[in-house]
Amino acid sequence: MSQEISCGLEYITTPDLQACLTEALHSNYSFIVANVVHPRFRRSYIPGASKIGGFTRSDMVLSPQDWTSRIVAKISPYICVDSKSPVVRQRHEDCLNEELSYSRGLGVPAIMLSLQSRNTNNLSRILQTYYETSHHPSLIWASVPMYCTRNARRNNQDDDDECEEAWDETWHWWSKFHERLDWDKRVGVVLELSADIPPQEILKRWLGEPVKAIVIPTSIFHNNKKGYPVLSRAHQQLVVNMVEHEAQVIVSGARRSNIEYYLQYLFRLWQRRPYKADDPMLSYARGWEDYLQTPLQPLADNLDTHTYNVFEKDPIKYDQYQRAITQALIDIKHKRLNKDNKEMMNELCNDVKEFSVSNEKNEMGHGDCLQETESITVMVLGAGRGPLVRATFNAADITKSKVKVIAVEKNPCAVVVLAAQVREVWRDRDVVVIPGDMRHLNLSPKADIIVSELLGSWGDNELSPECLDGAAGLLKPDGISIPKEYNSYVAPISSPRLWAAAKVASSSTTNQKEKNLETLWVVYMQNKHDIAGTKPVFNFKHPAKGTKDHEGDELTDYRGLPLTDNRRSATVSWDVEQDNVMHGFGGYFDCSLYGGEMISIVPSTHSPGMISWFPVFIPIKTPLRVHKGETITATFWRCVNSRRIWYEWIVEVGNYTTPLHNANGRSSEMLL
Amino acid sequence: MSQEISCGLEYITTPDLQACLTEALHSNYSFIVANVVHPRFRRSYIPGASKIGGFTRSDMVLSPQDWTSRIVAKISPYICVDSKSPVVRQRHEDCLNEELSYSRGLGVPAIMLSLQSRNTNNLSRILQTYYETSHHPSLIWASVPMYCTRNARRNNQDDDDECEEAWDETWHWWSKFHERLDWDKRVGVVLELSADIPPQEILKRWLGEPVKAIVIPTSIFHNNKKGYPVLSRAHQQLVVNMVEHEAQVIVSGARRSNIEYYLQYLFRLWQRRPYKADDPMLSYARGWEDYLQTPLQPLADNLDTHTYNVFEKDPIKYDQYQRAITQALIDIKHKRLNKDNKEMMNELCNDVKEFSVSNEKNEMGHGDCLQETESITVMVLGAGRGPLVRATFNAADITKSKVKVIAVEKNPCAVVVLAAQVREVWRDRDVVVIPGDMRHLNLSPKADIIVSELLGSWGDNELSPECLDGAAGLLKPDGISIPKEYNSYVAPISSPRLWAAAKVASSSTTNQKEKNLETLWVVYMQNKHDIAGTKPVFNFKHPAKGTKDHEGDELTDYRGLPLTDNRRSATVSWDVEQDNVMHGFGGYFDCSLYGGEMISIVPSTHSPGMISWFPVFIPIKTPLRVHKGETITATFWRCVNSRRIWYEWIVEVGNYTTPLHNANGRSSEMLL
Repeated sequence: MSQEISCGLEYITTPDLQACLTEALHSNYSFIVANVVHPRFRRSYIPGASKIGGFTRSDMVLSPQDWTSRIVAKISPYICVDSKSPVVRQRHEDCLNEELSYSRGLGVPAIMLSLQSRNTNNLSRILQTYYETSHHPSLIWASVPMYCTRNARRNNQDDDDECEEAWDETWHWWSKFHERLDWDKRVGVVLELSADIPPQEILKRWLGEPVKAIVIPTSIFHNNKKGYPVLSRAHQQLVVNMVEHEAQVIVSGARRSNIEYYLQYLFRLWQRRPYKADDPMLSYARGWEDYLQTPLQPLADNLDTHTYNVFEKDPIKYDQYQRAITQALIDIKHKRLNKDNKEMMNELCNDVKEFSVSNEKNEMGHGDCLQETESITVMVLGAGRGPLVRATFNAADITKSKVKVIAVEKNPCAVVVLAAQVREVWRDRDVVVIPGDMRHLNLSPKADIIVSELLGSWGDNELSPECLDGAAGLLKPDGISIPKEYNSYVAPISSPRLWAAAKVASSSTTNQKEKNLETLWVVYMQNKHDIAGTKPVFNFKHPAKGTKDHEGDELTDYRGLPLTDNRRSATVSWDVEQDNVMHGFGGYFDCSLYGGEMISIVPSTHSPGMISWFPVFIPIKTPLRVHKGETITATFWRCVNSRRIWYEWIVEVGNYTTPLHNANGRSSEMLL
Repeated sequence: MSQEISCGLEYITTPDLQACLTEALHSNYSFIVANVVHPRFRRSYIPGASKIGGFTRSDMVLSPQDWTSRIVAKISPYICVDSKSPVVRQRHEDCLNEELSYSRGLGVPAIMLSLQSRNTNNLSRILQTYYETSHHPSLIWASVPMYCTRNARRNNQDDDDECEEAWDETWHWWSKFHERLDWDKRVGVVLELSADIPPQEILKRWLGEPVKAIVIPTSIFHNNKKGYPVLSRAHQQLVVNMVEHEAQVIVSGARRSNIEYYLQYLFRLWQRRPYKADDPMLSYARGWEDYLQTPLQPLADNLDTHTYNVFEKDPIKYDQYQRAITQALIDIKHKRLNKDNKEMMNELCNDVKEFSVSNEKNEMGHGDCLQETESITVMVLGAGRGPLVRATFNAADITKSKVKVIAVEKNPCAVVVLAAQVREVWRDRDVVVIPGDMRHLNLSPKADIIVSELLGSWGDNELSPECLDGAAGLLKPDGISIPKEYNSYVAPISSPRLWAAAKVASSSTTNQKEKNLETLWVVYMQNKHDIAGTKPVFNFKHPAKGTKDHEGDELTDYRGLPLTDNRRSATVSWDVEQDNVMHGFGGYFDCSLYGGEMISIVPSTHSPGMISWFPVFIPIKTPLRVHKGETITATFWRCVNSRRIWYEWIVEVGNYTTPLHNANGRSSEMLL
């Protein structure tokens, strides 16, 4: 989120560019918007024909620094390269190319042009050539009105449908234009605010677009009692929303007040905005907005110190685990008590030796059930540097339980820390550290409770199912797994920015483009719009039940453990309620730990303040235009072979189907 | 076109595979179709679970040679990997993978499986993995019935719409399946013929698909008077059509006759087919069907001997030129006669020296109009090895005209041939050879007639406009250009084969795919279907008129020649009358030489027997599904800069737009 508001001033005519700039800077504006070609200069440009004189002012009127930082160059507004007339089209094409090439020479930071309809085939073609032929091209700012007065005037304005269409229309201008430029991230939209405020769903859709600036016509301001220009409450909200999404502000139009006053008002408005200080996620995620990261593979790669540091700071996650462990300890004690009572009733006459309490330190590997009835064995699988061990001891203290903790960890660096903790912090605790991979250990005693936190941003994508199934032999038959269940979720989203970022991300080789659009990305998504709601995809339960054969018998592996099948496929559908462009999915998970305790990063149920997971962005190779009334159907597969796990996905809208993404895990995979 | 008919025999059960194959080969069938898994073997396949016994017969029953050349392996027909039940889906997926991997091990040439609905997401996903993981994968033959009895039964069969839908439906099964496999050329369709014959437009669409085989059920045959199985006339036509498009034939079903008789009948049917021996193109193009070639660039690269040899053999083209030159000579002589008469009337008293006849050999570069009133100067621009010079002399002999021929040629190798012809063949003719580029020559006398043949398959794509405009100074103000006008044409086509061929063509680098789908390909198209009619795109006239400035004055270059603008853009639209998939365009040209004489490769007006040009295939990057009632709108640009010419194109259907193809000529261009 932007910390500052950046304002520019638009000049409709610039009789003296230097004077205009001086005036604007003097009033604290950061930049001005001005025509690149002075309208007084007559032009007759035919390829090969000799030109008489220049076609605009000299570039000597400003310093190079001013050109490259203070000027947004506006393309002559009459230019219409998509005219129906071939002659006009060709002439205007020549003019546009001249202005683009002149702007390139000046090195202006941005070139602003206005879109006038959905047909921008030739315009976008020329801009594509501009980008292909420029070493340091400027940003392109395409301006559209928020409200299409042309559409509105055509019919009665009271007609709601027509009105909605007028709000809808200009988004199509922009979206089709951006599509033709392959969602290039150097191309953004400039929204010209209208006196009316758009409906919420229209506004939300705009917030998913790369809005580089909003133009506020001075006519929208009204004067307050003291005579200063102010905005209506609804406009204030709109401006703050846009600036929060990194839009700059351009003041434009007839000066009905001192131009300084507009700027001062906007500064005040931004400073007084409601500040969401209570969400730790907001401050934690600052600077990471829309920044794509490759998902961790903690199973294949050992985590580093920095990563442990970050995760251990989560203010919420370990509290939830502690609550779940507490509940599990209580439940086990109750169960034992019941069992003991029953057994006492039944075996009252038997030897009482069994129930004697022993304070001996446990030895691993033999003497398996001497303390069974007393000490509760908790295995922390993937203990890392110990936060879940700590949570277990806290839970034990709260419930006054006697616990034996076995901390299993495969990362030798983390084992060092764990061992140090045992020596220094947990000296009086019954705790053992076992270095090794939980999938290949055979320990006694078996655990009453297994505690693990092996989840990725999309739930099972760090291979929690495979790890926990591999460790299933460590749990007693009626033991408790924390977590006991988790689900992955997806929602179809529109986000030109995320898609463009995925397309170019680390594209060292030419073949990389496809690869990066067949990969899950961990990202704090900001500049995106949800096309439809979040729905569940895959579900995993622990301890897992085995697959059944065709006679209904549960299958087991050579160790006698249930043979689970962690392959999945799921088809999810959504109804589209607004025209949009789908660029992929937002991916989330929720997880039921134990006894009703949950952790979730699903937006509607997000555990407040939990910062350990950003969502995932799951791109699709070609963005899909979706229309109101259509249905989006996505199928996801979780594929498994003996060495790796991967996802494949396919999306259908109407008669259109995307190619299969990540066939055979060719672009992304998780190693076992 | 296939010269032979290849027939196979399908076995529903194969109690003894070796016996079946022996029987089929003994009856002269080339191969058999048989289930890869013997249905008697019970299967229970769960990953990781140990299997008891094998799941099919041993591969020792046949020789390796028989497996790799005589057996089409049929996947168990009950397998339905797109079942709604997750359990069935998973089990069948395991079975399918087992059969695929067993077939891969056997090395069978083709694996046949049947499509059962439009939903083949999981099936195609599994096959994609099969291709990704196989070094020598078999071909996949997907069989569909021509007529979907399921659809037909649902409603009254008399209803025409329902009936049409039943013919339409199975094409969608195939087409969607093939789309999901990215139109892989290793995947073909097998059509099961029905008792009824499909409507023509359905049949035509199938002929655009890669039909690898047709299945003829024995039930379609009826017995003739002598008791032998024969087909109805309509079925005969259908079978011949399909075999002409390289389909093989599979006989299937209950034997109501000796199996040899079916084969003998099919052989006879093929031998007696109507043979189109009268079209030279058919014999010339044999072996070049659907073979993609890069267009020539005769301006940038000099043609080789072989190319001249081929082109000079055209039986039609030079006849047409000769007729056009004849007409031009007649017209010039008439005009001169009129002019002479007038002048004689006006200047009767003047010196008659001007009208004296001279037999002196002309000298180039001076004495420009001494014989003007007598000899007609014909410049052949791009004379090659002389066929147009020959045509000019023929025309002169026919019209008893005195011509002076100036043959301009830039290719030094061709100049050698021309010079030899002058010495040896044209000894008595008034002919001069000028080596050099027609765009950079200044010759006297100016020409009365310029004759050139600089056209490519898409008309202007070998830069005829630029060459002739550059040579405009060589023509007298009222001189004649042959050709005087040409047009390029396009039609939207469906052709998975051409598209797949373009996609993989010469893909030495990973980035090549995009390049090859942004390039024009010269190809004799056979396996394609026209989605809509052929429409004109660009037009060029010679001598060209100059561009006008905004005051209406014609612009000229430094030499005083008209400043022509050979940039073009054109938008063409078609209504879609049948659901289809568009893979690109067929491109053609026609050319008006002079006096009503034409040459054309537009299918509807093709000059009979003219073999010099195959059409072009203009691909689009992503094939587009188009639906009855929609409109296809394509825009083509012909772009020009000082060094090169290139095309760009974009296609819109409904709300979908392709990316801009070949932006800034990044993938294909013609060098000036």
